[in-house]
Amino acid sequence: MSEKSMSSEHTARLLIHCQDQSGIVQAVSGLLYHVGANITALDQYTTEASGGDYFMRVEFLLPQLEKQHDILIENFQRNVANMYAMNWRLALVKERKKVALFVSKHDHALMELLWRHARGQLPCDIACVISNHEDLREAVENFGIEYKVVKVTPETKVQAEAQINEWVADCDLLVLARYMQILSEDFTAKWAQKIINIHHSFLPAFVGADPYGQAYDKGVKLIGATAHYVTADLDQGPIIEQDVKRVDHRYTVQELRELGADVERQVLARAITWHLEDRVIVFGHKTVVFE
Amino acid sequence: MSEKSMSSEHTARLLIHCQDQSGIVQAVSGLLYHVGANITALDQYTTEASGGDYFMRVEFLLPQLEKQHDILIENFQRNVANMYAMNWRLALVKERKKVALFVSKHDHALMELLWRHARGQLPCDIACVISNHEDLREAVENFGIEYKVVKVTPETKVQAEAQINEWVADCDLLVLARYMQILSEDFTAKWAQKIINIHHSFLPAFVGADPYGQAYDKGVKLIGATAHYVTADLDQGPIIEQDVKRVDHRYTVQELRELGADVERQVLARAITWHLEDRVIVFGHKTVVFE
Amino acid sequence: MSEKSMSSEHTARLLIHCQDQSGIVQAVSGLLYHVGANITALDQYTTEASGGDYFMRVEFLLPQLEKQHDILIENFQRNVANMYAMNWRLALVKERKKVALFVSKHDHALMELLWRHARGQLPCDIACVISNHEDLREAVENFGIEYKVVKVTPETKVQAEAQINEWVADCDLLVLARYMQILSEDFTAKWAQKIINIHHSFLPAFVGADPYGQAYDKGVKLIGATAHYVTADLDQGPIIEQDVKRVDHRYTVQELRELGADVERQVLARAITWHLEDRVIVFGHKTVVFE
Amino acid sequence: MSEKSMSSEHTARLLIHCQDQSGIVQAVSGLLYHVGANITALDQYTTEASGGDYFMRVEFLLPQLEKQHDILIENFQRNVANMYAMNWRLALVKERKKVALFVSKHDHALMELLWRHARGQLPCDIACVISNHEDLREAVENFGIEYKVVKVTPETKVQAEAQINEWVADCDLLVLARYMQILSEDFTAKWAQKIINIHHSFLPAFVGADPYGQAYDKGVKLIGATAHYVTADLDQGPIIEQDVKRVDHRYTVQELRELGADVERQVLARAITWHLEDRVIVFGHKTVVFE
Repeated sequence: MSEKSMSSEHTARLLIHCQDQSGIVQAVSGLLYHVGANITALDQYTTEASGGDYFMRVEFLLPQLEKQHDILIENFQRNVANMYAMNWRLALVKERKKVALFVSKHDHALMELLWRHARGQLPCDIACVISNHEDLREAVENFGIEYKVVKVTPETKVQAEAQINEWVADCDLLVLARYMQILSEDFTAKWAQKIINIHHSFLPAFVGADPYGQAYDKGVKLIGATAHYVTADLDQGPIIEQDVKRVDHRYTVQELRELGADVERQVLARAITWHLEDRVIVFGHKTVVFE
Repeated sequence: MSEKSMSSEHTARLLIHCQDQSGIVQAVSGLLYHVGANITALDQYTTEASGGDYFMRVEFLLPQLEKQHDILIENFQRNVANMYAMNWRLALVKERKKVALFVSKHDHALMELLWRHARGQLPCDIACVISNHEDLREAVENFGIEYKVVKVTPETKVQAEAQINEWVADCDLLVLARYMQILSEDFTAKWAQKIINIHHSFLPAFVGADPYGQAYDKGVKLIGATAHYVTADLDQGPIIEQDVKRVDHRYTVQELRELGADVERQVLARAITWHLEDRVIVFGHKTVVFE
Repeated sequence: MSEKSMSSEHTARLLIHCQDQSGIVQAVSGLLYHVGANITALDQYTTEASGGDYFMRVEFLLPQLEKQHDILIENFQRNVANMYAMNWRLALVKERKKVALFVSKHDHALMELLWRHARGQLPCDIACVISNHEDLREAVENFGIEYKVVKVTPETKVQAEAQINEWVADCDLLVLARYMQILSEDFTAKWAQKIINIHHSFLPAFVGADPYGQAYDKGVKLIGATAHYVTADLDQGPIIEQDVKRVDHRYTVQELRELGADVERQVLARAITWHLEDRVIVFGHKTVVFE
Repeated sequence: MSEKSMSSEHTARLLIHCQDQSGIVQAVSGLLYHVGANITALDQYTTEASGGDYFMRVEFLLPQLEKQHDILIENFQRNVANMYAMNWRLALVKERKKVALFVSKHDHALMELLWRHARGQLPCDIACVISNHEDLREAVENFGIEYKVVKVTPETKVQAEAQINEWVADCDLLVLARYMQILSEDFTAKWAQKIINIHHSFLPAFVGADPYGQAYDKGVKLIGATAHYVTADLDQGPIIEQDVKRVDHRYTVQELRELGADVERQVLARAITWHLEDRVIVFGHKTVVFE
């Protein structure tokens, strides 16, 4: 059945990672069939011709989803996951993810997300916007979304992160939409694979400060951006999405920045949408993205 | 297992079209599992939320493929295809498709195909190149490929097509790489969904003669090309692939033609590759392309 | 001097169209030099190798621009324009163009323009938004911009256009940002080359109603949009900009519409920006765009 | 007059670099006017709003070009260049540049150039192909172009470069089309701004060996290539052109390499064409490319 038009009320997704073995598709689809589910999308990927890592995303429609949810999980674990030693999770489309957005002063990436959300194009609930500055309060509150400010200094970092942890306790995803504070190792470990950052550069080029200045000095002909999961290793987390735009010698640093902002907001929006649709599986330092 | 690196000797693809019903994935994967096949890729698509048309492409590895081929076909028909009233076919990767290329005088699309083939990037055997002109004989024969010429006039068209039919009798695909003769209804009917044409325009715009002249007069800002299956309805067959390039007012008609030639050869090469990899299913006037 | 960073206070642009002859660059640059102007950008284009149409755009910085404006115009007409029988105009950057935006119910193109304007990326003053519906009043007024509604029926069309003409009397440009009313021949003649429309299709394909439905039925692999000047000949005015996005069989008509909306707002914004920067010269049914 | 269709016999290009001052356009166009030249294209760029570096490219048609060539150079130097302390050069279109191509074993970039040249799309004479391997002799000689081999070891490098210098003594441009030998500082100094290399990566990312392996390990979503002038500072010379293609997790290192090869050959061909059309001016570590 068409993935897009079906009732989200009865739709769920299975994400699976295990060693590649024979019979996985049969086992998964067999179990789903026996509980009365109709598979609406199925993607898989293996890293090698044989014996590699195996990844699967299955989307299915189950009319009795609410009623059968617990038994489905139990059966899947016992009859399928155990046999193949799977890492797996089940996501229900109707359980919309709760997202907190982080921003400092650059509003372009944040506004793109708030705008898309307002138009119904971002399948999540936005819990709040958290910033280390007051600047964007009005812009955010105009969308009817709570704006919380926490000042961060080297001395107050631990406290500040404690405060943030309290605010986002029930969130499923944290999005750094140009948030210019480095998060502690504790914090990134606690939220592993649950923080997405937009890096204002085509990584691995131009790591560090002032990437547009670097790009200008180097005379590059393309400007890019990278959305990635945040790890303790700054700017080195698994890449979800990247894109570039063409530039030439006429671009000033300021114009590179503006064009870069355009790429950033589009790249971040795509990466978040894929995460929210359970299309991303992290695998070592890399991602599998089932588009 | 990785689709790309597995042994093509033991790889096959199932292409299926039927009405959408519950249990199809389970039925197909179950049968494949029971014969010992390992599914390496599975794509599906349905036109509607329920009761629409259902399409599936499954690629699998079967160590005993040669030995089990006949029994697989028999079992699949009896146990799966009949139950779901499927249109289906099984393609073995090791049975490379035989392709005849057609050309008149413009060599860019043809050369791209010959070049890719010479580099091992076009998974097929090229039976011959057929033309209504002598012009490209040397260029083709340099690739070690037979060049056959048949003159076509309104009076000799029936004869010419009879001659062509003889030459391509054992071919699986005919590619019109800028072949400027209109094929008869009989011919296109006989080779339904087995002739691919490159149209030097972004269809449905600029149907008919001199599309680059039309594009120039209209002042368009993009130049495109379309690869499609050939039907009796000229230039209206199911579209497989399209692409465009940006132009501006400075382009002369001649420059539009040159840029267009670049798009044409890339679009045609992609469309043919997808056809050869059994990724295209025709559905009414449209195609499903499992990339 | 750098076109982007100079003082807009003292910057002007000359747009010239005449028959191609020898010495034009010398004549124009000589006159500008003698009044003390510094040429910061110069683009030219001729339609033919000799004797064709000649187009030129010169941007220059003139410290005494205000004081010398009248004498510059007089001198240019007498010493240069008369000699070459030029159509020409002088545009001062500091005289920001006044723009009226028109919309019906689809807000994506309008919102993009209001947003860019709010961020200082659209060099114009927005006089008002005019609609035949009340729907978008709040969204527009949130930007602090006046929203005017005029109902249009076949019976009231003359009156409605009279009302509109009154409202936009001092405007320099009218933008149809998905305004679903056909303007009369009188109106388009009065505002020749001063109305820009976004057409929700890659023209000349899919002229007329429901282009996304047409695109869906045809199974095209690209979705596009076209920004053009409005003439009495519906959808056939000179094209300023076009772009496309790639789609596949999975897109529903609704999804084609959403992706199309994205292309539309970007294409329209680019076309308007070029118009506001005096980069577009209309030439018969086509445009010269000096990017 | 139209740049593309005019007689190349009488066409020349002036490339100018100096400090930005008032009156340059007037001075250049005035001199050209007085010798009877017709300016067919004029591009300029300055690095700053005032007092920056100024660059200009003028293309003009001069019916008596051959006869007036010497006097034009003399007059320009005396009356224009001296006044503005210009670095400048005059290039005649009819004096086609002589180019030597260098390759090791990967043929894709080389073949693209030979193919374009054979089709008349590369405005130069190809003097020869030089390699440190025999592998591609037949492929090159099939194009009727001389293939010269010089083995290079650390011990014979000086000798080998002496041999190469002899072979290319009358060449204007050396193209490293995947030539895997590092050239000496002496050699690159002697041929400053006259050697173009294709780097199999989107610089500055993935400098060094095995960039596709690096890209694979990093899980990037884009694969790119960079064409640049060669300096003693390996892979760090001024960038002329860059481009990227989208990839995903499914690409093997081998497939990244193949797609990369496609980007490489296109990027290199564009960079060389621009160089041959005198569109590139090197400026410190960067380039100005007048497209």
